[in-house]
Amino acid sequence: MAFIDTLLEIQHRHNSLLCVGLDTDPARIPVSLQKSEDPVLEFNRRIIEATSDLVCAYKLNVAFYEAMGSEGWQALHRTLDLIPKGIVVIGDAKRGDIGNTSQMYAKSLFEDFGFTATTASPYMGEDSVAPFLTDAERGTFVLAVTSNPGAKDFQHLRINGTPLYEHVVKKVSRWNKNRNCGLVVGATRPAALKRIRALAPSLPILIPGIGAQGGDLTSAIRHGSSAKGDLAVINASRSILYASNKDDFADAARKEASLLRDTINNVREKYFG
Amino acid sequence: MAFIDTLLEIQHRHNSLLCVGLDTDPARIPVSLQKSEDPVLEFNRRIIEATSDLVCAYKLNVAFYEAMGSEGWQALHRTLDLIPKGIVVIGDAKRGDIGNTSQMYAKSLFEDFGFTATTASPYMGEDSVAPFLTDAERGTFVLAVTSNPGAKDFQHLRINGTPLYEHVVKKVSRWNKNRNCGLVVGATRPAALKRIRALAPSLPILIPGIGAQGGDLTSAIRHGSSAKGDLAVINASRSILYASNKDDFADAARKEASLLRDTINNVREKYFG
Repeated sequence: MAFIDTLLEIQHRHNSLLCVGLDTDPARIPVSLQKSEDPVLEFNRRIIEATSDLVCAYKLNVAFYEAMGSEGWQALHRTLDLIPKGIVVIGDAKRGDIGNTSQMYAKSLFEDFGFTATTASPYMGEDSVAPFLTDAERGTFVLAVTSNPGAKDFQHLRINGTPLYEHVVKKVSRWNKNRNCGLVVGATRPAALKRIRALAPSLPILIPGIGAQGGDLTSAIRHGSSAKGDLAVINASRSILYASNKDDFADAARKEASLLRDTINNVREKYFG
Repeated sequence: MAFIDTLLEIQHRHNSLLCVGLDTDPARIPVSLQKSEDPVLEFNRRIIEATSDLVCAYKLNVAFYEAMGSEGWQALHRTLDLIPKGIVVIGDAKRGDIGNTSQMYAKSLFEDFGFTATTASPYMGEDSVAPFLTDAERGTFVLAVTSNPGAKDFQHLRINGTPLYEHVVKKVSRWNKNRNCGLVVGATRPAALKRIRALAPSLPILIPGIGAQGGDLTSAIRHGSSAKGDLAVINASRSILYASNKDDFADAARKEASLLRDTINNVREKYFG
Protein backbone atom coordinates (compact mmCIF):
# COMPACT_ATOMS: atom_id res chain seq x y z
CA MET A 1 0.00 0.00 0.00
CA ALA A 2 1.43 3.40 -0.99
CA PHE A 3 2.26 5.70 1.91
CA ILE A 4 -0.54 8.14 1.13
CA ASP A 5 -3.12 5.34 1.37
CA THR A 6 -1.74 4.20 4.73
CA LEU A 7 -2.04 7.77 5.99
CA LEU A 8 -5.58 8.24 4.68
CA GLU A 9 -6.67 4.88 6.09
CA ILE A 10 -5.64 5.78 9.65
CA GLN A 11 -6.86 9.39 9.40
CA HIS A 12 -10.34 8.10 8.54
CA ARG A 13 -10.34 5.07 10.85
CA HIS A 14 -9.29 7.14 13.87
CA ASN A 15 -11.13 10.23 12.59
CA SER A 16 -8.01 12.23 13.43
CA LEU A 17 -5.41 14.49 11.87
CA LEU A 18 -3.49 14.62 15.14
CA CYS A 19 0.16 13.59 15.36
CA VAL A 20 1.76 13.39 18.78
CA GLY A 21 5.46 14.30 18.86
CA LEU A 22 7.24 11.91 21.18
CA ASP A 23 10.17 14.25 21.80
CA THR A 24 10.70 13.11 25.32
CA ASP A 25 12.98 15.22 27.49
CA PRO A 26 14.37 13.07 30.36
CA ALA A 27 14.40 16.16 32.61
CA ARG A 28 10.63 16.55 32.29
CA ILE A 29 9.62 12.99 33.16
CA PRO A 30 7.63 12.79 36.44
CA VAL A 31 9.70 11.85 39.48
CA SER A 32 7.84 8.57 40.06
CA LEU A 33 9.02 7.21 36.69
CA GLN A 34 12.64 8.20 37.22
CA LYS A 35 13.17 5.00 39.22
CA SER A 36 12.08 2.68 36.42
CA GLU A 37 14.72 0.84 34.38
CA ASP A 38 14.26 3.06 31.31
CA PRO A 39 12.31 6.20 32.25
CA VAL A 40 12.07 7.51 28.66
CA LEU A 41 10.69 4.22 27.39
CA GLU A 42 8.25 3.95 30.30
CA PHE A 43 7.06 7.53 29.76
CA ASN A 44 6.58 6.87 26.04
CA ARG A 45 4.71 3.63 26.78
CA ARG A 46 2.25 5.42 29.04
CA ILE A 47 1.73 8.25 26.52
CA ILE A 48 1.20 5.81 23.65
CA GLU A 49 -1.26 3.68 25.66
CA ALA A 50 -3.17 6.83 26.60
CA THR A 51 -3.36 8.37 23.11
CA SER A 52 -3.02 5.75 20.35
CA ASP A 53 -6.73 5.65 19.48
CA LEU A 54 -6.76 9.44 19.11
CA VAL A 55 -3.94 9.95 16.60
CA CYS A 56 -3.11 9.25 12.97
CA ALA A 57 0.62 9.43 13.63
CA TYR A 58 3.43 9.68 16.11
CA LYS A 59 6.51 11.71 15.25
CA LEU A 60 9.81 11.01 16.97
CA ASN A 61 12.52 13.58 16.53
CA VAL A 62 15.65 11.48 16.24
CA ALA A 63 17.80 14.24 17.78
CA PHE A 64 16.22 13.78 21.20
CA TYR A 65 17.24 10.12 21.21
CA GLU A 66 20.69 10.60 19.63
CA ALA A 67 21.49 13.09 22.37
CA MET A 68 21.07 10.26 24.92
CA GLY A 69 23.75 8.17 23.21
CA SER A 70 23.37 4.42 22.71
CA GLU A 71 20.72 4.20 25.45
CA GLY A 72 18.63 6.66 23.48
CA TRP A 73 19.14 4.60 20.35
CA GLN A 74 17.72 1.61 22.19
CA ALA A 75 14.83 3.61 23.70
CA LEU A 76 13.93 4.71 20.17
CA HIS A 77 13.89 1.11 18.90
CA ARG A 78 11.82 -0.09 21.82
CA THR A 79 9.37 2.83 21.60
CA LEU A 80 8.66 1.95 17.98
CA ASP A 81 7.79 -1.60 19.05
CA LEU A 82 5.05 -0.18 21.31
CA ILE A 83 3.14 1.69 18.62
CA PRO A 84 0.11 -0.22 17.29
CA LYS A 85 0.28 -1.28 13.64
CA GLY A 86 -1.50 0.98 11.16
CA ILE A 87 -0.48 4.20 12.89
CA VAL A 88 2.02 6.22 10.85
CA VAL A 89 5.36 6.60 12.64
CA ILE A 90 7.48 9.51 11.43
CA GLY A 91 11.21 9.53 12.14
CA ASP A 92 11.84 13.27 12.09
CA ALA A 93 15.47 13.33 10.98
CA LYS A 94 15.69 16.06 8.29
CA ARG A 95 18.47 14.12 6.54
CA GLY A 96 19.84 14.73 3.06
CA ASP A 97 23.20 13.84 1.52
CA ILE A 98 24.70 12.62 -1.76
CA GLY A 99 22.83 9.63 -3.18
CA ASN A 100 24.85 6.72 -1.78
CA THR A 101 24.84 8.38 1.66
CA SER A 102 21.11 9.19 1.72
CA GLN A 103 20.64 5.52 0.91
CA MET A 104 22.42 4.69 4.19
CA TYR A 105 20.08 7.02 6.09
CA ALA A 106 17.05 5.48 4.38
CA LYS A 107 18.30 2.02 5.38
CA SER A 108 18.75 3.13 8.98
CA LEU A 109 15.36 4.86 9.28
CA PHE A 110 13.15 2.52 7.25
CA GLU A 111 14.85 -0.88 7.66
CA ASP A 112 16.78 -0.74 10.92
CA PHE A 113 14.20 1.32 12.85
CA GLY A 114 11.16 0.58 10.69
CA PHE A 115 9.70 4.10 10.57
CA THR A 116 6.75 4.50 8.19
CA ALA A 117 7.97 7.94 7.14
CA THR A 118 10.75 10.47 7.59
CA THR A 119 11.52 14.13 6.96
CA ALA A 120 14.19 15.32 4.51
CA SER A 121 15.97 18.57 3.73
CA PRO A 122 15.70 19.68 0.08
CA TYR A 123 18.92 21.75 -0.15
CA MET A 124 20.96 19.08 -1.98
CA GLY A 125 18.24 18.41 -4.57
CA GLU A 126 16.67 15.42 -6.24
CA ASP A 127 19.33 12.72 -5.92
CA SER A 128 19.66 13.49 -2.18
CA VAL A 129 15.95 12.74 -1.61
CA ALA A 130 15.46 9.97 -4.20
CA PRO A 131 16.84 7.12 -2.03
CA PHE A 132 14.09 7.82 0.52
CA LEU A 133 11.42 7.43 -2.18
CA THR A 134 12.21 4.05 -3.71
CA ASP A 135 9.91 2.11 -1.35
CA ALA A 136 6.36 3.31 -2.04
CA GLU A 137 5.22 2.21 1.43
CA ARG A 138 7.58 4.68 3.15
CA GLY A 139 6.74 8.37 3.13
CA THR A 140 9.07 11.36 3.01
CA PHE A 141 8.01 14.83 4.11
CA VAL A 142 10.37 17.33 2.47
CA LEU A 143 10.96 20.64 4.29
CA ALA A 144 9.21 23.48 2.46
CA VAL A 145 8.50 26.19 5.06
CA THR A 146 9.66 25.54 8.59
CA SER A 147 8.14 26.91 11.78
CA ASN A 148 11.26 28.60 13.17
CA PRO A 149 12.37 32.26 12.84
CA GLY A 150 15.28 31.31 10.50
CA ALA A 151 12.75 30.11 7.88
CA LYS A 152 12.86 33.65 6.51
CA ASP A 153 16.63 33.56 5.85
CA PHE A 154 16.45 31.45 2.67
CA GLN A 155 13.03 29.77 2.23
CA HIS A 156 11.27 33.06 1.48
CA LEU A 157 13.88 34.49 -0.92
CA ARG A 158 12.24 35.21 -4.29
CA ILE A 159 13.40 33.68 -7.56
CA ASN A 160 11.69 35.32 -10.54
CA GLY A 161 9.00 36.55 -8.17
CA THR A 162 8.25 33.24 -6.45
CA PRO A 163 9.74 32.23 -3.10
CA LEU A 164 12.27 29.39 -2.89
CA TYR A 165 9.79 27.21 -1.00
CA GLU A 166 7.44 27.21 -4.00
CA HIS A 167 10.24 25.87 -6.18
CA VAL A 168 10.72 23.13 -3.60
CA VAL A 169 6.99 22.32 -3.61
CA LYS A 170 6.88 22.09 -7.42
CA LYS A 171 9.91 19.79 -7.52
CA VAL A 172 8.54 17.55 -4.77
CA SER A 173 5.22 17.24 -6.65
CA ARG A 174 7.23 15.93 -9.60
CA TRP A 175 9.19 13.48 -7.43
CA ASN A 176 5.91 11.92 -6.19
CA LYS A 177 5.83 9.02 -8.68
CA ASN A 178 5.40 6.44 -5.90
CA ARG A 179 2.68 8.45 -4.09
CA ASN A 180 4.88 8.72 -1.03
CA CYS A 181 6.00 12.36 -0.96
CA GLY A 182 4.80 14.93 1.52
CA LEU A 183 5.80 18.41 2.67
CA VAL A 184 6.62 20.09 5.96
CA VAL A 185 4.98 23.49 6.40
CA GLY A 186 5.03 25.28 9.75
CA ALA A 187 1.75 26.48 11.26
CA THR A 188 3.49 29.78 11.95
CA ARG A 189 3.25 30.67 8.22
CA PRO A 190 -0.46 30.43 7.32
CA ALA A 191 -0.21 32.41 4.07
CA ALA A 192 2.55 30.13 2.80
CA LEU A 193 0.54 27.09 3.88
CA LYS A 194 -2.49 28.27 1.89
CA ARG A 195 -0.39 28.89 -1.20
CA ILE A 196 1.36 25.52 -0.88
CA ARG A 197 -1.92 23.60 -0.51
CA ALA A 198 -3.11 25.29 -3.72
CA LEU A 199 0.08 24.22 -5.52
CA ALA A 200 0.03 20.68 -4.16
CA PRO A 201 -3.62 19.73 -3.62
CA SER A 202 -2.98 16.05 -3.01
CA LEU A 203 0.26 15.87 -1.01
CA PRO A 204 0.25 15.09 2.71
CA ILE A 205 1.45 18.09 4.71
CA LEU A 206 3.08 17.67 8.10
CA ILE A 207 2.35 20.80 10.13
CA PRO A 208 4.45 21.48 13.23
CA GLY A 209 4.44 24.73 15.16
CA ILE A 210 1.08 24.89 16.90
CA GLY A 211 1.16 25.20 20.70
CA ALA A 212 4.60 26.08 22.10
CA GLN A 213 5.71 27.67 18.83
CA GLY A 214 2.58 29.84 18.53
CA GLY A 215 1.10 28.79 15.18
CA ASP A 216 -2.64 29.24 14.66
CA LEU A 217 -4.54 25.95 14.74
CA THR A 218 -7.59 27.02 12.75
CA SER A 219 -5.60 28.28 9.76
CA ALA A 220 -3.37 25.20 9.93
CA ILE A 221 -6.40 22.94 9.43
CA ARG A 222 -8.29 25.21 7.06
CA HIS A 223 -5.33 25.86 4.76
CA GLY A 224 -3.37 22.66 5.35
CA SER A 225 -6.08 20.07 4.67
CA SER A 226 -7.01 18.72 1.26
CA ALA A 227 -10.38 19.65 -0.27
CA LYS A 228 -11.77 16.60 1.55
CA GLY A 229 -10.47 17.76 4.94
CA ASP A 230 -7.71 15.19 5.26
CA LEU A 231 -3.97 14.86 4.41
CA ALA A 232 -2.93 17.48 6.97
CA VAL A 233 -0.91 15.97 9.81
CA ILE A 234 -1.08 18.35 12.77
CA ASN A 235 1.78 17.81 15.19
CA ALA A 236 1.72 18.67 18.89
CA SER A 237 4.48 17.65 21.27
CA ARG A 238 5.08 19.55 24.49
CA SER A 239 1.45 20.59 25.10
CA ILE A 240 0.45 16.91 25.24
CA LEU A 241 3.52 15.22 26.75
CA TYR A 242 3.76 17.70 29.61
CA ALA A 243 0.05 18.48 30.13
CA SER A 244 0.79 17.49 33.72
CA ASN A 245 4.15 17.01 35.42
CA LYS A 246 2.65 14.73 38.06
CA ASP A 247 1.68 11.06 38.15
CA ASP A 248 -1.51 11.80 36.24
CA PHE A 249 0.55 12.83 33.19
CA ALA A 250 -0.88 10.07 30.97
CA ASP A 251 -4.49 10.94 31.80
CA ALA A 252 -3.72 14.61 31.29
CA ALA A 253 -2.05 13.82 27.95
CA ARG A 254 -5.15 11.87 26.88
CA LYS A 255 -7.45 14.74 27.84
CA GLU A 256 -5.29 17.24 25.96
CA ALA A 257 -4.98 15.01 22.86
CA SER A 258 -8.70 14.30 22.88
CA LEU A 259 -9.53 17.99 23.15
CA LEU A 260 -7.11 18.83 20.34
CA ARG A 261 -8.48 16.12 18.06
CA ASP A 262 -12.04 17.34 18.69
CA THR A 263 -11.07 20.96 18.12
CA ILE A 264 -9.43 19.95 14.84
CA ASN A 265 -12.52 17.96 13.85
CA ASN A 266 -14.82 20.89 14.62
CA VAL A 267 -12.79 23.07 12.26
CA ARG A 268 -12.87 20.31 9.61
CA GLU A 269 -16.64 20.02 10.03
CA LYS A 270 -17.05 23.77 9.61
CA TYR A 271 -14.90 24.15 6.49
CA PHE A 272 -15.04 20.76 4.80
CA GLY A 273 -18.44 19.54 6.02
CA MET B 1 41.58 27.98 20.76
CA ALA B 2 39.05 28.95 18.07
CA PHE B 3 38.31 26.25 15.49
CA ILE B 4 40.04 28.11 12.66
CA ASP B 5 43.27 28.26 14.65
CA THR B 6 43.14 24.54 15.39
CA LEU B 7 42.69 23.88 11.67
CA LEU B 8 45.54 26.20 10.63
CA GLU B 9 47.86 24.74 13.27
CA ILE B 10 47.50 21.19 11.97
CA GLN B 11 47.54 22.24 8.29
CA HIS B 12 50.91 23.88 8.86
CA ARG B 13 52.35 21.29 11.26
CA HIS B 14 51.51 18.39 8.92
CA ASN B 15 52.00 20.53 5.81
CA SER B 16 48.76 19.10 4.49
CA LEU B 17 45.31 20.14 3.29
CA LEU B 18 44.29 16.50 2.96
CA CYS B 19 41.26 15.11 4.77
CA VAL B 20 40.65 11.38 4.65
CA GLY B 21 36.99 10.36 4.66
CA LEU B 22 36.57 7.33 6.90
CA ASP B 23 33.33 6.22 5.26
CA THR B 24 34.01 2.57 5.76
CA ASP B 25 31.82 0.13 3.87
CA PRO B 26 31.83 -3.27 5.66
CA ALA B 27 31.46 -5.01 2.29
CA ARG B 28 34.78 -3.59 1.08
CA ILE B 29 36.94 -4.57 4.03
CA PRO B 30 39.63 -7.14 3.08
CA VAL B 31 38.72 -10.75 3.84
CA SER B 32 41.52 -11.20 6.40
CA LEU B 33 40.00 -8.51 8.65
CA GLN B 34 36.48 -9.92 8.48
CA LYS B 35 37.40 -12.39 11.23
CA SER B 36 38.39 -9.71 13.75
CA GLU B 37 36.00 -8.77 16.52
CA ASP B 38 35.05 -5.44 14.95
CA PRO B 39 36.17 -5.37 11.31
CA VAL B 40 35.15 -1.72 10.73
CA LEU B 41 37.08 -0.54 13.78
CA GLU B 42 40.12 -2.64 12.86
CA PHE B 43 40.04 -1.32 9.29
CA ASN B 44 39.80 2.27 10.55
CA ARG B 45 42.64 1.68 13.03
CA ARG B 46 44.95 0.47 10.29
CA ILE B 47 44.00 3.37 7.97
CA ILE B 48 44.53 5.93 10.74
CA GLU B 49 47.89 4.46 11.77
CA ALA B 50 48.99 4.53 8.12
CA THR B 51 47.88 8.08 7.32
CA SER B 52 47.65 10.25 10.43
CA ASP B 53 50.92 12.15 9.81
CA LEU B 54 49.76 13.00 6.29
CA VAL B 55 46.41 14.64 6.98
CA CYS B 56 44.95 17.77 8.59
CA ALA B 57 41.60 16.08 9.18
CA TYR B 58 39.51 12.95 9.12
CA LYS B 59 35.88 13.14 8.11
CA LEU B 60 33.42 10.49 9.21
CA ASN B 61 30.06 10.46 7.51
CA VAL B 62 27.70 9.56 10.33
CA ALA B 63 25.28 7.84 7.91
CA PHE B 64 27.71 4.99 7.27
CA TYR B 65 27.81 4.22 10.99
CA GLU B 66 24.10 4.79 11.69
CA ALA B 67 23.31 2.28 8.96
CA MET B 68 25.13 -0.38 11.03
CA GLY B 69 22.82 0.19 14.02
CA SER B 70 24.13 0.30 17.57
CA GLU B 71 27.31 -1.59 16.60
CA GLY B 72 28.07 1.20 14.16
CA TRP B 73 27.43 3.76 16.86
CA GLN B 74 30.05 2.05 18.98
CA ALA B 75 32.51 1.70 16.09
CA LEU B 76 32.18 5.45 15.55
CA HIS B 77 32.94 6.20 19.20
CA ARG B 78 35.92 3.86 19.27
CA THR B 79 37.29 5.15 15.95
CA LEU B 80 37.34 8.68 17.34
CA ASP B 81 39.41 7.46 20.28
CA LEU B 82 42.11 6.28 17.83
CA ILE B 83 42.68 9.64 16.13
CA PRO B 84 45.73 11.51 17.49
CA LYS B 85 44.97 14.79 19.25
CA GLY B 86 45.38 17.95 17.19
CA ILE B 87 43.94 16.43 14.02
CA VAL B 88 40.56 17.90 13.13
CA VAL B 89 37.78 15.30 13.21
CA ILE B 90 34.69 16.21 11.21
CA GLY B 91 31.38 14.47 11.93
CA ASP B 92 29.73 14.83 8.54
CA ALA B 93 26.07 14.84 9.59
CA LYS B 94 24.45 17.69 7.60
CA ARG B 95 22.01 18.31 10.45
CA GLY B 96 19.72 21.30 10.90
CA ASP B 97 16.47 21.67 12.87
CA ILE B 98 14.66 24.21 15.05
CA GLY B 99 16.89 25.70 17.73
CA ASN B 100 16.19 23.41 20.69
CA THR B 101 16.55 20.36 18.42
CA SER B 102 19.79 21.49 16.75
CA GLN B 103 21.09 21.91 20.28
CA MET B 104 20.45 18.18 20.83
CA TYR B 105 22.42 17.36 17.68
CA ALA B 106 25.26 19.65 18.76
CA LYS B 107 25.33 17.89 22.13
CA SER B 108 25.47 14.48 20.46
CA LEU B 109 28.18 15.40 17.95
CA PHE B 110 30.41 17.66 20.04
CA GLU B 111 29.90 16.33 23.59
CA ASP B 112 28.86 12.70 23.26
CA PHE B 113 31.14 11.87 20.29
CA GLY B 114 33.64 14.70 20.71
CA PHE B 115 33.95 15.70 17.05
CA THR B 116 36.01 18.85 16.44
CA ALA B 117 33.64 19.95 13.68
CA THR B 118 30.45 19.05 11.85
CA THR B 119 28.54 19.89 8.68
CA ALA B 120 25.12 21.60 8.71
CA SER B 121 22.36 22.26 6.20
CA PRO B 122 21.42 25.95 5.82
CA TYR B 123 17.79 25.52 4.68
CA MET B 124 16.22 26.33 8.07
CA GLY B 125 18.31 29.48 8.57
CA GLU B 126 20.23 31.12 11.37
CA ASP B 127 18.60 29.69 14.51
CA SER B 128 18.97 26.16 13.11
CA VAL B 129 22.76 26.58 12.81
CA ALA B 130 23.39 28.83 15.84
CA PRO B 131 23.44 26.00 18.44
CA PHE B 132 26.42 24.46 16.60
CA LEU B 133 28.35 27.72 16.88
CA THR B 134 28.22 28.51 20.59
CA ASP B 135 31.47 26.68 21.41
CA ALA B 136 34.26 28.54 19.56
CA GLU B 137 36.46 25.42 19.61
CA ARG B 138 33.99 23.44 17.50
CA GLY B 139 33.71 24.16 13.79
CA THR B 140 30.66 23.98 11.53
CA PHE B 141 30.92 23.71 7.76
CA VAL B 142 27.61 24.90 6.28
CA LEU B 143 26.55 23.44 2.92
CA ALA B 144 26.94 26.04 0.17
CA VAL B 145 27.42 24.13 -3.10
CA THR B 146 27.40 20.36 -2.91
CA SER B 147 29.18 17.94 -5.24
CA ASN B 148 26.12 15.94 -6.37
CA PRO B 149 23.97 16.44 -9.51
CA GLY B 150 20.99 17.68 -7.43
CA ALA B 151 23.05 20.73 -6.37
CA LYS B 152 21.61 22.49 -9.44
CA ASP B 153 17.97 22.02 -8.30
CA PHE B 154 17.98 24.81 -5.70
CA GLN B 155 21.52 25.99 -4.85
CA HIS B 156 22.03 27.65 -8.23
CA LEU B 157 18.63 29.38 -8.47
CA ARG B 158 19.14 33.13 -8.85
CA ILE B 159 17.72 35.68 -6.44
CA ASN B 160 18.13 39.22 -7.80
CA GLY B 161 20.83 37.90 -10.10
CA THR B 162 22.88 36.04 -7.51
CA PRO B 163 22.59 32.31 -6.87
CA LEU B 164 21.11 31.01 -3.62
CA TYR B 165 24.47 29.64 -2.52
CA GLU B 166 25.94 33.17 -2.49
CA HIS B 167 23.19 34.25 -0.10
CA VAL B 168 24.17 31.31 2.09
CA VAL B 169 27.86 32.30 1.97
CA LYS B 170 27.10 35.90 2.93
CA LYS B 171 24.93 34.84 5.86
CA VAL B 172 27.50 32.33 7.11
CA SER B 173 30.21 35.02 6.98
CA ARG B 174 28.01 37.08 9.30
CA TRP B 175 27.44 34.14 11.66
CA ASN B 176 31.22 33.71 12.10
CA LYS B 177 31.51 35.71 15.34
CA ASN B 178 33.31 32.87 17.13
CA ARG B 179 35.69 32.19 14.21
CA ASN B 180 34.31 28.67 13.86
CA CYS B 181 32.26 28.76 10.65
CA GLY B 182 33.24 27.09 7.41
CA LEU B 183 31.58 26.16 4.12
CA VAL B 184 31.14 23.01 2.07
CA VAL B 185 31.79 23.51 -1.64
CA GLY B 186 32.04 20.54 -4.01
CA ALA B 187 35.10 20.21 -6.25
CA THR B 188 32.71 19.48 -9.11
CA ARG B 189 31.76 23.20 -9.25
CA PRO B 190 35.07 25.09 -9.75
CA ALA B 191 33.48 28.38 -10.89
CA ALA B 192 31.27 28.49 -7.80
CA LEU B 193 34.28 27.64 -5.63
CA LYS B 194 36.26 30.55 -7.09
CA ARG B 195 33.39 32.96 -6.53
CA ILE B 196 32.83 31.73 -2.97
CA ARG B 197 36.50 32.08 -2.02
CA ALA B 198 36.35 35.68 -3.26
CA LEU B 199 33.26 36.33 -1.11
CA ALA B 200 34.65 34.59 1.98
CA PRO B 201 38.43 35.01 1.87
CA SER B 202 39.04 33.77 5.40
CA LEU B 203 36.57 30.92 5.94
CA PRO B 204 37.69 27.28 5.94
CA ILE B 205 36.19 25.43 2.96
CA LEU B 206 35.63 21.69 3.07
CA ILE B 207 35.90 20.38 -0.48
CA PRO B 208 34.50 16.93 -1.25
CA GLY B 209 34.03 15.51 -4.73
CA ILE B 210 37.55 14.83 -6.05
CA GLY B 211 38.27 11.24 -7.08
CA ALA B 212 35.18 9.02 -7.39
CA GLN B 213 32.91 12.03 -7.97
CA GLY B 214 35.13 13.49 -10.72
CA GLY B 215 35.98 16.96 -9.40
CA ASP B 216 39.19 18.61 -10.61
CA LEU B 217 41.92 18.65 -7.95
CA THR B 218 43.96 21.55 -9.31
CA SER B 219 41.03 23.97 -9.42
CA ALA B 220 39.88 22.78 -5.99
CA ILE B 221 43.23 23.83 -4.49
CA ARG B 222 43.75 26.92 -6.62
CA HIS B 223 40.26 28.33 -6.06
CA GLY B 224 39.51 26.80 -2.66
CA SER B 225 42.60 27.88 -0.72
CA SER B 226 43.04 31.20 1.02
CA ALA B 227 45.53 33.74 -0.36
CA LYS B 228 48.14 32.03 1.84
CA GLY B 229 47.42 28.59 0.36
CA ASP B 230 45.67 27.17 3.40
CA LEU B 231 42.08 26.85 4.79
CA ALA B 232 40.98 24.46 2.03
CA VAL B 233 40.22 20.99 3.38
CA ILE B 234 40.41 18.55 0.49
CA ASN B 235 38.51 15.35 1.19
CA ALA B 236 39.19 11.98 -0.39
CA SER B 237 37.50 8.78 0.77
CA ARG B 238 37.17 5.80 -1.53
CA SER B 239 40.39 6.39 -3.53
CA ILE B 240 42.40 6.08 -0.31
CA LEU B 241 40.41 3.54 1.74
CA TYR B 242 40.18 1.09 -1.14
CA ALA B 243 43.51 1.76 -2.89
CA SER B 244 43.97 -2.01 -2.48
CA ASN B 245 41.40 -4.64 -1.56
CA LYS B 246 44.09 -7.01 -0.29
CA ASP B 247 46.06 -7.31 2.94
CA ASP B 248 48.36 -4.46 1.84
CA PHE B 249 45.41 -2.02 2.00
CA ALA B 250 46.98 0.14 4.72
CA ASP B 251 50.29 0.51 2.84
CA ALA B 252 48.38 1.23 -0.36
CA ALA B 253 46.27 3.83 1.48
CA ARG B 254 49.44 5.48 2.79
CA LYS B 255 50.98 5.61 -0.68
CA GLU B 256 47.81 7.09 -2.15
CA ALA B 257 47.42 9.63 0.67
CA SER B 258 51.08 10.61 0.44
CA LEU B 259 50.84 11.07 -3.32
CA LEU B 260 47.69 13.15 -2.96
CA ARG B 261 49.19 15.37 -0.25
CA ASP B 262 52.29 15.93 -2.40
CA THR B 263 50.23 16.67 -5.50
CA ILE B 264 48.21 19.18 -3.47
CA ASN B 265 51.40 20.75 -2.13
CA ASN B 266 52.88 21.06 -5.62
CA VAL B 267 49.81 23.00 -6.71
CA ARG B 268 50.03 25.18 -3.58
CA GLU B 269 53.72 25.82 -4.31
CA LYS B 270 52.93 26.84 -7.88
CA TYR B 271 50.06 29.22 -7.09
CA PHE B 272 50.76 30.42 -3.57
CA GLY B 273 54.59 30.13 -3.45
